[in-house]
Amino acid sequence: MNQDYIKPDNWSIIEEGFEIERVKSSESLFSIGNGAMGQRANFEEYYSGKTFQGSYIAGIYYPDKTKVGWWKNGYPEYFAKVLNAPNWIGIDIEINGENLDLAKCQSVANFKRELNMKEGIYYRSFNATLQNGTEISVKVTRFLSLDLDELGVINYEITPLNGDASIVFKPYVDAGVHNEDANWEEKFWEPLNVQSSGNEGFVTARTFKTHFTATTFMQNTILLEDNSLNVTPLNIEKSSDKIQFSYEVTASKGQTASIQKFGGYTVSLNHDDTQIAAEKVIEKALEISYSNLVENQKKAWAKIWEMSDITIDGDVKAQQGIRFNIFQLNQTYLGKDSRLNIGPKGFTGEKYGGSTYWDTEAYCIPFYMATKDQQVARNLLTYRYNQLDKAIENAAKLGFKNGAALYPMVTMNGEECHNEWEITFEEIHRNGAIAFAIFNYYRFTGDYSYIPEKGLEVLIGIARFWYQRATYSTYRNQYVILGVTGPNEYENNVNNNFYTNYVAKWCIDYAMEQIQKVKNEYASDYSRIMSKVALDDAEIMHWKKVADHMYFPYSEEHGVYLQQDGFLDKELVKVHDLDRSQRPINQKWSWDRILRSPYIKQADTLQGFYFFEDHFSREQLEKHFDFYEPFTVHESSLSPCVHSIQAAVLGRMEQAYTFYLRTSRLDLDDYNKEVEEGLHITSMAGTWMSIVEGFGGMRVKNNQLHFEPRIPKEWNGYSFKINFRNQILKISVHQNETKFTLEGNNPIAVFVNGKEVQVEPNCLVTV
Amino acid sequence: MNQDYIKPDNWSIIEEGFEIERVKSSESLFSIGNGAMGQRANFEEYYSGKTFQGSYIAGIYYPDKTKVGWWKNGYPEYFAKVLNAPNWIGIDIEINGENLDLAKCQSVANFKRELNMKEGIYYRSFNATLQNGTEISVKVTRFLSLDLDELGVINYEITPLNGDASIVFKPYVDAGVHNEDANWEEKFWEPLNVQSSGNEGFVTARTFKTHFTATTFMQNTILLEDNSLNVTPLNIEKSSDKIQFSYEVTASKGQTASIQKFGGYTVSLNHDDTQIAAEKVIEKALEISYSNLVENQKKAWAKIWEMSDITIDGDVKAQQGIRFNIFQLNQTYLGKDSRLNIGPKGFTGEKYGGSTYWDTEAYCIPFYMATKDQQVARNLLTYRYNQLDKAIENAAKLGFKNGAALYPMVTMNGEECHNEWEITFEEIHRNGAIAFAIFNYYRFTGDYSYIPEKGLEVLIGIARFWYQRATYSTYRNQYVILGVTGPNEYENNVNNNFYTNYVAKWCIDYAMEQIQKVKNEYASDYSRIMSKVALDDAEIMHWKKVADHMYFPYSEEHGVYLQQDGFLDKELVKVHDLDRSQRPINQKWSWDRILRSPYIKQADTLQGFYFFEDHFSREQLEKHFDFYEPFTVHESSLSPCVHSIQAAVLGRMEQAYTFYLRTSRLDLDDYNKEVEEGLHITSMAGTWMSIVEGFGGMRVKNNQLHFEPRIPKEWNGYSFKINFRNQILKISVHQNETKFTLEGNNPIAVFVNGKEVQVEPNCLVTV
Repeated sequence: MNQDYIKPDNWSIIEEGFEIERVKSSESLFSIGNGAMGQRANFEEYYSGKTFQGSYIAGIYYPDKTKVGWWKNGYPEYFAKVLNAPNWIGIDIEINGENLDLAKCQSVANFKRELNMKEGIYYRSFNATLQNGTEISVKVTRFLSLDLDELGVINYEITPLNGDASIVFKPYVDAGVHNEDANWEEKFWEPLNVQSSGNEGFVTARTFKTHFTATTFMQNTILLEDNSLNVTPLNIEKSSDKIQFSYEVTASKGQTASIQKFGGYTVSLNHDDTQIAAEKVIEKALEISYSNLVENQKKAWAKIWEMSDITIDGDVKAQQGIRFNIFQLNQTYLGKDSRLNIGPKGFTGEKYGGSTYWDTEAYCIPFYMATKDQQVARNLLTYRYNQLDKAIENAAKLGFKNGAALYPMVTMNGEECHNEWEITFEEIHRNGAIAFAIFNYYRFTGDYSYIPEKGLEVLIGIARFWYQRATYSTYRNQYVILGVTGPNEYENNVNNNFYTNYVAKWCIDYAMEQIQKVKNEYASDYSRIMSKVALDDAEIMHWKKVADHMYFPYSEEHGVYLQQDGFLDKELVKVHDLDRSQRPINQKWSWDRILRSPYIKQADTLQGFYFFEDHFSREQLEKHFDFYEPFTVHESSLSPCVHSIQAAVLGRMEQAYTFYLRTSRLDLDDYNKEVEEGLHITSMAGTWMSIVEGFGGMRVKNNQLHFEPRIPKEWNGYSFKINFRNQILKISVHQNETKFTLEGNNPIAVFVNGKEVQVEPNCLVTV
Repeated sequence: MNQDYIKPDNWSIIEEGFEIERVKSSESLFSIGNGAMGQRANFEEYYSGKTFQGSYIAGIYYPDKTKVGWWKNGYPEYFAKVLNAPNWIGIDIEINGENLDLAKCQSVANFKRELNMKEGIYYRSFNATLQNGTEISVKVTRFLSLDLDELGVINYEITPLNGDASIVFKPYVDAGVHNEDANWEEKFWEPLNVQSSGNEGFVTARTFKTHFTATTFMQNTILLEDNSLNVTPLNIEKSSDKIQFSYEVTASKGQTASIQKFGGYTVSLNHDDTQIAAEKVIEKALEISYSNLVENQKKAWAKIWEMSDITIDGDVKAQQGIRFNIFQLNQTYLGKDSRLNIGPKGFTGEKYGGSTYWDTEAYCIPFYMATKDQQVARNLLTYRYNQLDKAIENAAKLGFKNGAALYPMVTMNGEECHNEWEITFEEIHRNGAIAFAIFNYYRFTGDYSYIPEKGLEVLIGIARFWYQRATYSTYRNQYVILGVTGPNEYENNVNNNFYTNYVAKWCIDYAMEQIQKVKNEYASDYSRIMSKVALDDAEIMHWKKVADHMYFPYSEEHGVYLQQDGFLDKELVKVHDLDRSQRPINQKWSWDRILRSPYIKQADTLQGFYFFEDHFSREQLEKHFDFYEPFTVHESSLSPCVHSIQAAVLGRMEQAYTFYLRTSRLDLDDYNKEVEEGLHITSMAGTWMSIVEGFGGMRVKNNQLHFEPRIPKEWNGYSFKINFRNQILKISVHQNETKFTLEGNNPIAVFVNGKEVQVEPNCLVTV
């Protein structure tokens, strides 16, 4: 049984009823973020039950010393951890002398959480009867401002229900936090300074080693029945890393006392003096006022939804799923800052560390490209360009020379920070996705300028890597790539992974093509780059030899490319024929059994068919899908989306729909039984692709949009928008028709199932 | 350059001159042991320089919590660590108020260490000028008694050279020790009790988790010019885990003051009350007296040498090498106790943990079989028999059923304690060596009784494992073994490693053969075993199918079996053509580069040719040797010996001699630059094999001894003895003749280069 306590709703994630076993899962599911910071849905008040505390600031990390059993040459010394940041949300509550703690109350009733995705606001409310018999009603509103992205806002209301009550609000800021996954149980923050002024409190702390400074701040206003009491703290407690105020209010039965807390972080990434910056944020917030901040938040989210919403008519669970995915992606990354990237857990947990995986290029860029200004995708590409030198260093550590670049498997600042040899050193296909994203960006946006300005250098570094990484097999008289891990991490250290070999060849071919184009069309960029990278024709001829003679394992018998050499030696029992008690194999089987099984964690050969769809016929796709999908266990969050798209392409809508539900509700329904640890952010972009590229069949070919609209039989209709070259095209697909409308000035021609359709600005076209 | 400070000498290991950089290496090289305990050659007196403190008790270990970066299903929770035991050798020395510390003296002259291997006694002497100007001469004698194997003895003499001196001897026993390789920097010993009585001191401590109790004891006698002073301690200092006595003596210039310290361990493995046991050991030692203990030690070692010595005439370095190897093997394991085994570092360091690897069966058993009573080898086999249930549990953890047994890669008590997936789960060929040792024991000793009594159950468990581990490849219409690591650990997770497949098939065939034999000849054992293991003919028929249709990768082009599938895809550059700056590759290359290279760490395919020499023609051996040796980097201590034997078989005596020197002086000359960490004990048995099986060409075929004597041109002659079925045959090989003498009662026929030779008791036969 999957988890099923989240109420279906078109716009909100809703939990009703208080269950201590669900607290950690809900802390993940109700997480909020604004691209610059984010946090799990921890309670403001003290909670003695099981909880996983987490607040995170984009771009702030800690290089935790590597922990391994046996050291292998080439392992990085450090692992960049997403850092649990100081806590600014904390408000201890005392009611008639008793601390409020939901784990200790006589009873908790009407407990409800609602994450209103339309508004970007998180609400929580409950009634509680304390040990001392006091009954209270609590309502909490919390959000992280999109407009002032260093600011978070809480409104915490308490109403005594069975008598007058003395209420003490004790808001605090605390830098004495730790990471649950710290390798050596060290603290990561060194407190520098604790200050207060009136209702404002500040704790400035610095990360060890990386020396990021953050001022975590709060400003508190106490109200009774919506009137500010203009009080200052009764008491202030300071320690080296924490500051806490006390405010006492007496509320009559039925009267509501509340605290409005502004809080957040100002960090040295953006400010010279983080303390002064914090004071300015508070000043600005007070100027705007609580109620206007709420309104502005709703408006800002409306603007995001205006562009990125996908509607699904007739299937609330599917609708809720896709909105949850789009909402989380926007909470995680808004694309303003090319120093940032999209962590696989976003701001919802610590697991995996680092912020950047190949997920960004393979899964996230299409979403951001189509739902934001193209600058956002360009920022994501620039992030890799800025880390090219580190990728070259990384390759050099593994013995590659002469400017060959190997991008890290996991990174924060460009340095590799993963340490399993079979991944770190061998899952090298990641380089391919980074090159592919450059191709994809140009294909979609038509903005070629990125390539001569930045992209070509990346392409050259990557081509150099593949050229050096391939070896010539005398035996085959072809080039082979030995000792790799493909996208399917249930195989390690294999030879001639089809996907890796294919993407390697493509990278070299594409780099050669772009070198030629830049040479012909951007002469000054060409000479700048060539003098920088010292590339000559002789070297390119060597590349070409590798690309032209790359070996691809193929089975004549099955008419398919083989995932890797030796795949047919496996015992080819299909997943369907596997005893259900053996699933998921990553929890039930020892690692060696997984490795020698034929089971596939996520699209591998089929990932190649996804990236390079045009290179293969639909018959070939079908043959490969039919060969590989039956061995695929989809135990990676990144798996169902690619299969959903391909099932849709093949017209298998039932299967496509099943995969869609699995990808879109992976966390809401907790398919992988691990939502407590955080959400799967990057695969959420895959959900978006399932609809747009899968059901909608959207492709860009020769600078034009193509669609092959399909619709699951469960739906009445669905719609999405695409920012195509600065014009917004809305597509609504119904069971019997597809409608297009264009917000823009220039008519565009789109192709629907191969037939050209003219779409005029602001006119509805029905096909 | 290798290390070269050890003076060549036929019987001793000698170091002259004090160099702080050599202290840790010498601590390893001058280690002493008596099978029941052992210790590095740490100084008795305090030393503030770099040192690696180590004392070890056989059979006492600690299960250290596993440390890995990413957990894989199936990893053991704990790693059995060889435990650094309490220190009983310590004697702080104060001379005229100054602590003696060789790192702080004004000068140290005439420093000499000598490990006299003939006597089994370690001597150290030096002159030192202290900061306070006092000049002293020091002589230390230390040994671990072979006769009383819980007892160690130290005689520490000090002679003031430039005036009278007040000397304070401060002997102590200290359980406050730690392991350098502790995963979590925890202490492993919990002190229980500290006691003293007269000149005797005791610290009783218990290991955490495993709850082994050890009383570490000392008894001290103070002498002036060889006369006991009959003094008791001036002062006794006790803490929770340490006891230290002070004795003050005034020695005139030229007079020698000394302390005789008896110490050691009594452990709960052998005694109910370790304190009482310790008191009895002291009583016994005092009864025997220091001088008789010294004499007894020399006699006991003479007895060992009488049987196990190998003489080499005309090559001191080769002579010293082989004796060092034989000496260390005897220090590590004497075969009295089937609970013990032969740790790869013996009592000389902590590295690797565990005590038992496949090294025991593959390398050590032949040495013990030929130089000790056959009971010793039988004890080593029994050790595995006693751990069969754990091996079955271990296999079950990895998903094997029905009594399949997978012996651990590394163990202390039968449980697996290694945690690299590519080794723990995949280096399964170890099972083969364990079965082979049973075959080998019977072949050599003619003692079949072990098989019906114990061995057959082991063979059945192992055959079951191989049968289940092989999978049927439809594609090949043969059985394959996927995802293994062969003896060459520079390949991981490969398919169809020739050695593994070959030994798997052999194990099944041999088990079937022995089942038949026991059925025919040992009916009651047969029915006992069959009812225990529930094996039926149908299952055996399945085994047979696997064995009969096992796949072996083969290259028609090269006429050789391939180390594994895909070997020919590698870039086959020979080691000889590799730039020297790239060696050793395990220090110079990242792990992925090693894995995709063709370089071989130790005999892999050739290990199969070593075990199953009779299955292949000499031409086949030559072809495989010529194919694989050029890719072999010999970066395992276990590599040169097998190659030395095979080079000798092929008549390539120069190469055989080079390999011999490398194996025999691996530690003395520190080829691998790691002798500081301890000695390579198990490979020392390989050195013995290089001479006996390599140069001597000894084999047992059809219950008879065969020789093909060869001699390196550098030697005048060499000799060794073989205990063949309770008669001692001595073989002396010279450049032009081979001599045999027999200590025993029954004439035996041996074959020399295929020709039968009769050897009568106590008659010299020259061939």
